[in-house]
Amino acid sequence: MDPHPSTRPLTTEEHTVTRQPAHTIVHDYHRAWTSGDVDGAMSLVADDITCRAPGVDLVGKAAYREFIGGFAPALTGVADIADFADAERVALFYYPQTTATTTAPAAECFTVRDGKIVDSVLVFDRLSFGPPSPR
Amino acid sequence: MDPHPSTRPLTTEEHTVTRQPAHTIVHDYHRAWTSGDVDGAMSLVADDITCRAPGVDLVGKAAYREFIGGFAPALTGVADIADFADAERVALFYYPQTTATTTAPAAECFTVRDGKIVDSVLVFDRLSFGPPSPR
Repeated sequence: MDPHPSTRPLTTEEHTVTRQPAHTIVHDYHRAWTSGDVDGAMSLVADDITCRAPGVDLVGKAAYREFIGGFAPALTGVADIADFADAERVALFYYPQTTATTTAPAAECFTVRDGKIVDSVLVFDRLSFGPPSPR
Repeated sequence: MDPHPSTRPLTTEEHTVTRQPAHTIVHDYHRAWTSGDVDGAMSLVADDITCRAPGVDLVGKAAYREFIGGFAPALTGVADIADFADAERVALFYYPQTTATTTAPAAECFTVRDGKIVDSVLVFDRLSFGPPSPR
């Protein structure tokens, strides 16, 4: 299936497209944004990404970046629950920890094509991430 | 690893334990409760199941049954998004459709041991499943 002769080194673009499996793209993306590197994360996102997030459907990288970039500064940590992958889809379950909660899970189902995230279904309970209730 | 001689037919219990992979257990469970068969679903759940659901941690089959049984009658349909499995964990992404919403996703990460679901991390956005807003 690979039309490129194996004696020629791959270009950067070919390397990305042919060598990085979906789960590597998604784990790199996840590590980037959860450590505050929103630019690095967005380099792995397609310009025409679509994302179904709680209460809003996002279309395009600008809208997606605003959404993720708006939440990233609130993160105080992240704890893994589980992850799964097939050829082009990757699922992550984890705790995005904030001052409001450290035990409310989030789940994301990513679709990756040509080395970029093209779609995300992002699930979390908005009520759990509200401000801490007064005691 | 199998201590049973292959010349003897498996008992029903052995068959369940040794033959049904985690994804089969979870798909049977999912099909049962989403079609209103809560009893059938609960036959695949361990007595000491733990479940992290939005806003509540459930312990034991009685509490879990009350939670699932309370939601099941509100279902008007279900639409699949994606599913994943490894040896003992299974992830489902789907739309639990109600009169309030048909496009708010839910995600579940199940752990299966000895033919029963022993743990679930259940993620959905409670606000999306509230009553329909007046127009």
